Amino acid sequence: MRLTTLILSVVALSGLRADEGMWTFDNIPARTIKAKYGVEPDAAWLKRLQLATLRFPGGTGAFVSPDGLVVTNHHVGRDAIAQVSTAKVDLVKDGFAAHSRDQEIKVPGLELMMLVSMEDVTARVNGAVKPGTADKDALTARRNALGEIRKAEEAKTGLTCEPVVLYQGGEYWLYRYQKFTDVRLAAAPELQVAAFGGDPDNYTYPRHNLDFSLFRVYENGKPYRPAAFLPFQPKGVSIGELTFISGHPGSTFRQQTHAQMVYARDFGIPFQLRSMARQKQALQVLSASSPEARRLAADAIYGIENGFKRLSGQLLGLSKPENLRKVLDGEEALKAAVAKDSAQQARVGESWPRVAQAVERQKAMLKAYTFMGPRSVALLGHALTLVRLPDEAAKPSEKRLTEFADGNLKATLTRLNSPRPIEKPVEAVRLAAGLREAADELGTEHPFVKAMLGGLTPEAVAKAAVESTKLNDPAARKQLAEGGKAALEATADPMILLAKKLDPLNRAARKQWEDEVTSVFSEHGARIAEARFKVFGKMLYPDATFTLRLGFGPVTTYATGTGTKAQPFTTFMGMYDRHLGWGGNALAAEDGAWTLPQRWLDRQSKLDLSTPFNFIYACDTVGGNSGSPVLNVKGEFVGINFDSVYEGQGGYYVYDADTKRAVATDARAILEVLRKIMDAGHLADELTGK
Amino acid sequence: MRLTTLILSVVALSGLRADEGMWTFDNIPARTIKAKYGVEPDAAWLKRLQLATLRFPGGTGAFVSPDGLVVTNHHVGRDAIAQVSTAKVDLVKDGFAAHSRDQEIKVPGLELMMLVSMEDVTARVNGAVKPGTADKDALTARRNALGEIRKAEEAKTGLTCEPVVLYQGGEYWLYRYQKFTDVRLAAAPELQVAAFGGDPDNYTYPRHNLDFSLFRVYENGKPYRPAAFLPFQPKGVSIGELTFISGHPGSTFRQQTHAQMVYARDFGIPFQLRSMARQKQALQVLSASSPEARRLAADAIYGIENGFKRLSGQLLGLSKPENLRKVLDGEEALKAAVAKDSAQQARVGESWPRVAQAVERQKAMLKAYTFMGPRSVALLGHALTLVRLPDEAAKPSEKRLTEFADGNLKATLTRLNSPRPIEKPVEAVRLAAGLREAADELGTEHPFVKAMLGGLTPEAVAKAAVESTKLNDPAARKQLAEGGKAALEATADPMILLAKKLDPLNRAARKQWEDEVTSVFSEHGARIAEARFKVFGKMLYPDATFTLRLGFGPVTTYATGTGTKAQPFTTFMGMYDRHLGWGGNALAAEDGAWTLPQRWLDRQSKLDLSTPFNFIYACDTVGGNSGSPVLNVKGEFVGINFDSVYEGQGGYYVYDADTKRAVATDARAILEVLRKIMDAGHLADELTGK
Repeated sequence: MRLTTLILSVVALSGLRADEGMWTFDNIPARTIKAKYGVEPDAAWLKRLQLATLRFPGGTGAFVSPDGLVVTNHHVGRDAIAQVSTAKVDLVKDGFAAHSRDQEIKVPGLELMMLVSMEDVTARVNGAVKPGTADKDALTARRNALGEIRKAEEAKTGLTCEPVVLYQGGEYWLYRYQKFTDVRLAAAPELQVAAFGGDPDNYTYPRHNLDFSLFRVYENGKPYRPAAFLPFQPKGVSIGELTFISGHPGSTFRQQTHAQMVYARDFGIPFQLRSMARQKQALQVLSASSPEARRLAADAIYGIENGFKRLSGQLLGLSKPENLRKVLDGEEALKAAVAKDSAQQARVGESWPRVAQAVERQKAMLKAYTFMGPRSVALLGHALTLVRLPDEAAKPSEKRLTEFADGNLKATLTRLNSPRPIEKPVEAVRLAAGLREAADELGTEHPFVKAMLGGLTPEAVAKAAVESTKLNDPAARKQLAEGGKAALEATADPMILLAKKLDPLNRAARKQWEDEVTSVFSEHGARIAEARFKVFGKMLYPDATFTLRLGFGPVTTYATGTGTKAQPFTTFMGMYDRHLGWGGNALAAEDGAWTLPQRWLDRQSKLDLSTPFNFIYACDTVGGNSGSPVLNVKGEFVGINFDSVYEGQGGYYVYDADTKRAVATDARAILEVLRKIMDAGHLADELTGK
Repeated sequence: MRLTTLILSVVALSGLRADEGMWTFDNIPARTIKAKYGVEPDAAWLKRLQLATLRFPGGTGAFVSPDGLVVTNHHVGRDAIAQVSTAKVDLVKDGFAAHSRDQEIKVPGLELMMLVSMEDVTARVNGAVKPGTADKDALTARRNALGEIRKAEEAKTGLTCEPVVLYQGGEYWLYRYQKFTDVRLAAAPELQVAAFGGDPDNYTYPRHNLDFSLFRVYENGKPYRPAAFLPFQPKGVSIGELTFISGHPGSTFRQQTHAQMVYARDFGIPFQLRSMARQKQALQVLSASSPEARRLAADAIYGIENGFKRLSGQLLGLSKPENLRKVLDGEEALKAAVAKDSAQQARVGESWPRVAQAVERQKAMLKAYTFMGPRSVALLGHALTLVRLPDEAAKPSEKRLTEFADGNLKATLTRLNSPRPIEKPVEAVRLAAGLREAADELGTEHPFVKAMLGGLTPEAVAKAAVESTKLNDPAARKQLAEGGKAALEATADPMILLAKKLDPLNRAARKQWEDEVTSVFSEHGARIAEARFKVFGKMLYPDATFTLRLGFGPVTTYATGTGTKAQPFTTFMGMYDRHLGWGGNALAAEDGAWTLPQRWLDRQSKLDLSTPFNFIYACDTVGGNSGSPVLNVKGEFVGINFDSVYEGQGGYYVYDADTKRAVATDARAILEVLRKIMDAGHLADELTGK
C-alpha cells in the first residue's frame, strides 16, 4: 500500500499519464499496467518479445513465423525493395510475392539486429571515475570505460555490442545484438497501396495504407528458425483492447525545459515554417515552368511538405495550453525537490535560469546563425567543405570543426564524394530564395548580405554561382579535395568563391552559437536530467535513443482537429471511397496520390471490403517505431505500426493523452491481401500457422 | 475595357475574391462569372431559378418536378416530419415514402414562400425624408414609408410583401411572395442516415449525410404546377464543374471593423469557449450520475457542443493572419477613399476610432455584463421577466426594456408561457456553474457575486433556488404574471427572490453596455456601411438578410485542418466504412452516431456503393442556405446544400477562398436511395422526368 501511494504521488508529481512512456525492457511499469488493464507482462512474455523484435536501418521489424519470416513497413523496407528491382522489373511500383522460397530475393548489405541481452554496466563505468575528477575528464573516463567494455564483450561473445546511455547518463548499459546478414525479400504490395494517399495523407487519419513488406532471414542458406516469433492473430484486435508496441523510437525532446519549449512554439518552429513556405513557393514557381522542372523539383517539394506538416503538428501540440502547463508543473515539482537538498540545489539550482538566458541568446541569434550557413543548398555545402578541408585537416582533431574531427571525417568525405545527382535548377532556386530571405530578414546592410550579394540581386548571384560551377560533378569535387590548398587557390569556380566569402562569417556565427547556446543547453540540460534521475529514478522512462522500448495503450478514438471523433478502424471500403472520391479520376489529383493499381480494381469483388484496414491506438511512439509490431496481451501480432496522427505530433515534446495516437496496418488486412490480391495465400498460411 | 479595369481595381480594392458573395438576384456579377468560367447566367435563367426556389421556415427548398415536388434538407423539414408522426409511427426515426399521391401527408401550418417579384423602392423611401431632417427622424420616416408601401402592395397584389433593407440602408426593396399553405410530406429517409455521424460529424468533412426530404405543394386539393422547377440531373456533377446555389443566407458579420474582429478573436470567442467548456464539464458530471440524468442533460450538452464547434471554427478562421489582413486592407482602402471627400470624411472619418473605443469598453465590461444576466438558466430568465413585467408594462413603450416594447412583448409572453419542459437538475447545474464562474472571474467581493451568493456556495444557492421554485410549471408562471405587483410581493418563490436581486444589477449593466458599446456599433457601423456603399455601390454584395441570394463556385478540394486534401466526393462506400469503423459496434460509440438502420444493412448489396454521396464546392454560404438547391450551369439540380466545413466557419466574418466549402448531398445519392432502399422509384422517376 505504501509503495502504491508513493507510485501514485510520483506519477502525479511527474505529470506522467497512464499510457505514457517508451519503457526499456528492464523497467516495464508492470504495476501501472496491471492497475489500469488487469494484465501484467511477465519476464517470459517480455523475453519472447525482445527476441522477436528486430532493428532495421532506421526502423523496426519482427519475426512472425517459425521459419524466419520478418515483417516491417513497406517504407522501412523500400530501399531494399528498390535495390533488388531491375531496369525491367520495378518491384516498388508493381509489388512482389515469392510463390516459393527459392523465389525469395536476397538483399545484399541488408542487416537486421536482434537484441540478445542487456547488461547494466553503470557501476563499472562510474567506477572508472576517481573521486574529485573534473566533469570533463569524468566524461572522457566514462567514454573510455564504455569503449573497453564493448571491445571485451564483442571479443568474448562474438555479438555486436553497443553501449547505451540512458537518462542522460543516469545509467550505462551494454546491449548485445545478433546480426542477420542474409535477408531476402518475400513479399511487398505496390507502393501505391503501401503509401496510399501519398504525401497529402502522410501524418493524417483516417488512413488506408497497406504499409508492410515481408522478408525472410536465412542462415547457412536455410530459413532461420528464430528463438521467438509473433504469430498473426487472424481475429485481429477490438476497440478498447490493450495493445503493446515494441520498437526503436528514435529521439524525443521531452527533457527540454519550459523555456526551450516556449521558444520552439513562439520562435523556432514559426521561423522554420515561414522559411519553408518561402522555399516551397520558389520551388513551385520552378515546378510550374515545365514538366522537366516539375520532375526535378518534386523531391525537394516533397521534403519541405513532409517537414512542414510534422512541424505544424508539433506547433499545434505546443500551442495547447494544457501541454506546456504540464511541462511547467513538472519543472516546478522538480525544482521544489531539488531545493530540499542543498548539494543538489548548488549543482542544478542555477541551471534553469542559465538555460532560459541561453534561450534569449538563441532568439537574438537565430536568424543570423541560420542564414549564415549553406542551409539546404548542396553545392554550397560541398564548396564549404572543400574550402575548409585543407585547413581543418592540418589541425589536431580536437581543434577542428566537429564534422572534420576524427570520428566524423569519414562520413563528411563520404557525403562530399556521394554520386547522388544534384539538380542545378533546384539548387539555383533554393540559393536565391535563401539569399533573398536573408536580405529581407537581416537587411541589405548586414555584413553577410553585403558580402554574399556584392551589390547584385540574390537571383543573379545564385544564377552565376550555380550555372558555371563544376561541383555538381563528384569527380570535380574529388579533384579539388585531393588538390589541397593549391588547387583551391587556383580555382575560379564561382561556388568556391562564394564559399570563401561564407567561411569566416559562418565560423564566427557557429562559434557564438555554440558558446552561448548549445554548450549551455548541453551542460545544464545534463545537470537537470541528473537531478531528475536522482528524484524520480526509474519511475520515469528515459528519452528515446533508437534502442528497444515497450509502449502500451488501447485501441481507441480521439477528437480530431476538425471536430469529429476518429473511427478506431478503417476498412477497404474507406480505401475505395477515397479512390472514388475524385470523381473517377484519382490520377489527376495530387500526383495521383489516391490512384489504385489496376489489379486492385479488377479484384475488388474478391475482397471482403469490410475487413479492417488501419487502426489507431494510444501507444506512445515517435519516428523509429516505424515497422514496430503491435501485439495483444497474449503477444500475438495484430498490426504493424507505420505513423502517428497530425494532432499528436506535439508528442516529440510532450505526451498528450488526448491526441497521441499511433496508426497501424491491421493484421487482417495483410492476410486478406496476401490471399485475394497478391496470390500469396501460402504466406498468409505461414503467418497464421496453418 | 475601361469598365473592366475599373471592375478589377474595385475588386482588388475591396478584397473581393472571385467566388465570393451572396448576390441579390437583381445584381449578379455576370461579368466576373463570364470572365472566370465562360458562362453567363441570363435573365430567363435567373427568373426561372428565382421562381423555383422556396423559403422554408429557417431554410430553403426548391420545386423539383412539374407536379410540385419540393426538396429541402431533412433537418429543415424535420419539425414537419415530427409533426405528422404519431405515437405509433415515428417518421423521423423510421423514414417515410408515399407510394401514391393519396398517401402524402399534409403538414398543418407549414407555409412555403416563393419570391414572385422584387421592386427597388429606394427612391420612394428616401423621398419620404425631407431635406434637413435629423438622422433619428429620418429613420422613422423611412420606416413609415416602407410600412405604407408594403400595405398598399399587399392590398393591390394579394401577395405577401416584405420590405428588405440592403447595404445597411443603401437600398430599400419590396419583395413580393406567393405563399403555399397546403404542403404534404412525400418522402424522407431515416434520421440516422439523414444526420449520419450525428453531432460529432456536424460541420466536418468527409461527410455522409442523406440530408433531404421531399414535400409536395398542393393547390385546391391538386398537385401544384409550378411556373418553374429544377429537374434532377441523374449524371450529377464533376470535379471542377461550376455550380450555383440559390437560397436564403441568414446573417453574416462581414461588415464589422478590423477592431471588432480582433476583439472577437482575442476576447469574445475565447471567453465564450471557456464559458461553454465550464458549462459542459458541469453537465457531464450530472450526465454521468445516472441514465435518467444523462437523458435530461443530453439536449443541453448537444447545444453547447454545436455552438462550441461553430465558434471554434470561427476562431480558426479569424486566427489565420491573411484573413484579418484582408479586412484591414479593405478598411484602409475605404478610409483612403473617404478621406478624398471632405463631407464623407466629416461624417464617417471618426467612426473607426469610435468603434475601436467602444471595443475597448466592451473588453472592460464583457465579464460583468455577461455574468449579470440569467444566461442560459431558463428558470432565472422567467423569474426576471416576471419581476419586471408590472413595472415595464406601466411605462410608455419607448421607455421599456426592449423585450417589453410593443413590438416584442407578445413574443416575450409567449416564451414565458411556453409549455416546453424545464429540467430542474439541468437548471441547477447550469445556475451553479454560472455563479461559480462569476465568482472565479469577478472575484468573491464583486457586488453581484456577494448579492447572489449571500455568503453561501454557488451550488447551495442554485440548489435552494431551483429545488423549491414553482416556476418550472407554466401555470405557476401564468398566475404570477396575472397577479401583478401584489402577487410578486407576496411570493416567497426563491427564484423570484434571486431575480429581484439580479434585476437592478442587470439593468445597470445593460444600460452601460448599450450606452457605451452597442449604440456606438450601431450608429458608426451604419455610417461606415453608408460610406462603403457610396464608394463601392453594388460592386459588392450586401450582408446576408435571409432573403434570396445567388452564390457560385466549382466542385473542388481544399487543404483540411489536419493536413490532407479533402476528396471532392464521398460515396456510399465511405458511409459503410464509417459504420464499420467502430469494430462492428457503432451503437456503442458516441450515442450511436454512425449506426445504420437495419434495412441499410439488409439492402447494402442492392446499392451501387460507388454512387457519389456528398460533395464539396466553393460557393459562399452561411446558415439559412440549408436546403438550397445546387445547380449546374444549365440550371439542373445536382445536389442539396446542408452544411459547410469546420475550417471555413470563419466565413461568418471573412470569406476565405482556401477553406470556404459548402457540403451538399448529391442528387445521384437521392435517386439511388429512393430506388434501392426506400421503394420509391416512382418519385425518382418523377424527379428525372421519366
